[in-house]
Amino acid sequence: MATTLEQQAEQAAESMTDLVERLARAARTAQAVLARMPSPERARALELAAQALRRAAPDVLAANARDIAAGEANGLSPAMLDRLRLDEKRLEGIAQAVADVAALPDPTGDVIDRTVRPNGMVLERVRIPIGVIGIIYESRPNVTADAAALCVRAGNAVLLRGGSEAVHSNRAIHAALVAGLVEGGVPAAAVQLLPTQDRAAVGAMLAAAGLIDMIVPRGGKSLVARVQADARVPVLAHLDGNNHTYIDRSADADMAKAIALNAKLRRTGICGAMETLLIDACYPDPHGLLEPLLAAGCELRGDARAQAIDPRILPATDEDWDTEYLEAILTVGIVDGIDDALAHIARHSSKHTDAIVAEDAAVAERFLSEVDSAIVMLNASSQFADGGEFGLGAEIGIATGRLHARGPVALEGLTTYKWLVRGSGQIRP
Amino acid sequence: MATTLEQQAEQAAESMTDLVERLARAARTAQAVLARMPSPERARALELAAQALRRAAPDVLAANARDIAAGEANGLSPAMLDRLRLDEKRLEGIAQAVADVAALPDPTGDVIDRTVRPNGMVLERVRIPIGVIGIIYESRPNVTADAAALCVRAGNAVLLRGGSEAVHSNRAIHAALVAGLVEGGVPAAAVQLLPTQDRAAVGAMLAAAGLIDMIVPRGGKSLVARVQADARVPVLAHLDGNNHTYIDRSADADMAKAIALNAKLRRTGICGAMETLLIDACYPDPHGLLEPLLAAGCELRGDARAQAIDPRILPATDEDWDTEYLEAILTVGIVDGIDDALAHIARHSSKHTDAIVAEDAAVAERFLSEVDSAIVMLNASSQFADGGEFGLGAEIGIATGRLHARGPVALEGLTTYKWLVRGSGQIRP
Repeated sequence: MATTLEQQAEQAAESMTDLVERLARAARTAQAVLARMPSPERARALELAAQALRRAAPDVLAANARDIAAGEANGLSPAMLDRLRLDEKRLEGIAQAVADVAALPDPTGDVIDRTVRPNGMVLERVRIPIGVIGIIYESRPNVTADAAALCVRAGNAVLLRGGSEAVHSNRAIHAALVAGLVEGGVPAAAVQLLPTQDRAAVGAMLAAAGLIDMIVPRGGKSLVARVQADARVPVLAHLDGNNHTYIDRSADADMAKAIALNAKLRRTGICGAMETLLIDACYPDPHGLLEPLLAAGCELRGDARAQAIDPRILPATDEDWDTEYLEAILTVGIVDGIDDALAHIARHSSKHTDAIVAEDAAVAERFLSEVDSAIVMLNASSQFADGGEFGLGAEIGIATGRLHARGPVALEGLTTYKWLVRGSGQIRP
Repeated sequence: MATTLEQQAEQAAESMTDLVERLARAARTAQAVLARMPSPERARALELAAQALRRAAPDVLAANARDIAAGEANGLSPAMLDRLRLDEKRLEGIAQAVADVAALPDPTGDVIDRTVRPNGMVLERVRIPIGVIGIIYESRPNVTADAAALCVRAGNAVLLRGGSEAVHSNRAIHAALVAGLVEGGVPAAAVQLLPTQDRAAVGAMLAAAGLIDMIVPRGGKSLVARVQADARVPVLAHLDGNNHTYIDRSADADMAKAIALNAKLRRTGICGAMETLLIDACYPDPHGLLEPLLAAGCELRGDARAQAIDPRILPATDEDWDTEYLEAILTVGIVDGIDDALAHIARHSSKHTDAIVAEDAAVAERFLSEVDSAIVMLNASSQFADGGEFGLGAEIGIATGRLHARGPVALEGLTTYKWLVRGSGQIRP
């Protein structure tokens, strides 16, 4: 289908801007239908989409094999190939995730608040879909299904623009998904895949103010930075997860050890991983805290006071304090208590997830109150920064901006609201 | 103070970008102090600001007289001069509005929701200030006090950039306001006035991503359009209020007459004024509906069927259906029932405020559900589209975008939230 679009566009010498406008207008029309569908019907359509995905497993895996072969020929890194690769189990996971989203409670129609004015007018704020969402993503083909399912569950149409490495996988997943949705009564134009090969498609999406209501970039730092820099459409994005954990002098030593190890090393490549460990200069056993990390093969880089703890700790450069490693490297700083920790975090945090380990309740509450990040944690591993772990069922992303939604964003973040005013003939004096 | 800044900048050959960055950083530091002030102290500081404004009345009125004299010399329109002009009564209104904002309940610290996870972690979403807000406005000097008061009440710092016609008035109001706030313990840098004469200041604000968290343009269409087109910072804006009122066949005739007259003519210059009246072709007495508007001197422009109702109705051009007149002109269209009305509104509404007058409950609910505007009204005048009338106490503006906040935006719209996670040593399996 995407090929056809590309061919059509080429034949008609249609610019990418015109194509995106045409697709976005079709999406808008489809979205109006989707918004009027009763919520259980939208859920049912998503269940059918999950079933269609399962039925299409042979096609999807064959398509994925083509992408993998091309990726190997093009010298993709092992990490990228791993992100790209699908197998029976991963594909079942993707289909199950769509079924799980179908089962999530739908926030649209919820009444946020209700007021009766002295003149008798009744005001309600009611949740509604945002409208047309654009998703720009890279090599993980699961995003095609995940993002589409979340958008559709909340009544939004979606324009998907995946990475060229995953083009065949994305087309196969998209085709199955749409077949199921259409069977359930959702217009096909509610979920559209944009041409992948032409980079101008991204530019046209970013410029489509009024046609696309929100863009969610899913991918590496350079993609997100480009989207944030160029978009004329509101963006829900997260840049770095340069996450700090501060070990207060009052911390329980075993807890501190377990949390530091887990926050850094459980999975180093996720955005909730700890990247800087701050230790109170009065913490009694800093070596006991760092030893398990060193023993597990984590590279430590520290300031002078941290380096004095263990000779294996390398010197940290200025840059290290602002780096999201996403691997087994950790910057370690010694700070003079909570004030110094708060100042360091204010200066260096990317405002994703910052944590404190402390038994002193006053210190803990001060940290929770004064750290200005999307997620602030007490006595827990920052690796919990995840929509699923937060009980949201799924997430479209973790937002580090300040408006609309922050932290893990799921269905509620894919809605907006309108004011309904019910009167009985009131006129304004 | 603003003069000093301008002079400083000139002497130091500081670019406007550098100046805005410096002021925004100072605002950020002040905001952290403001956010930590207990809410009653912020309220008290705003009360002191209101008192300081009252005491400064002679200075403010003298400064305003200079602006008026310059405006007359520069040939400002009578409407612009009226917006610019202050007198004892208007100034008292401005001071009282600041005191009223001080008395509003502060949303920061409110817990939006709370979840206990199966592993025992307690999650809360807590409202916090957005941070540093930029306000770009035109000739109304009251915005200096109104906008600053709302921002400060919710713990935000604010950078104000007013119009050059109001420069002396704005400086005098700003000076009084800050004197009162500082007396109440608010750092002076929490409310700053940017250089007015240099147009580059607006560009520098719009480009200040990461330094300014949100920009609110307050002014005419061209200002708002420029801000929306150029901003790299999230914008909370409203463009047109091209508002429709649809009179269904089931409408009560007296109610319809009263609402149409009020929605159009109570005040024609506000964004909640009706600009297009749609009448169901089956409505029994269209002439009775339009006669009071014509009698009151309203110019009516209609389609062929509307023109057939009364010879005084002029033909409507294509453009009329998309025009926010803000004066005593109204476009009148005849539609074939609710479906046609919905289609017309979907095509032409600016998504500010659209209303229906109907007794048929099914038709009314369909209108409320399907019209996708920020405010949708039943049996009430669209002139109620206002934060004060909605019980919000005040408004920073009426947002017609889809993200963050829609419709009248007051204190809640000037906040965001963060996730607080309280654990007891949880690590992620």
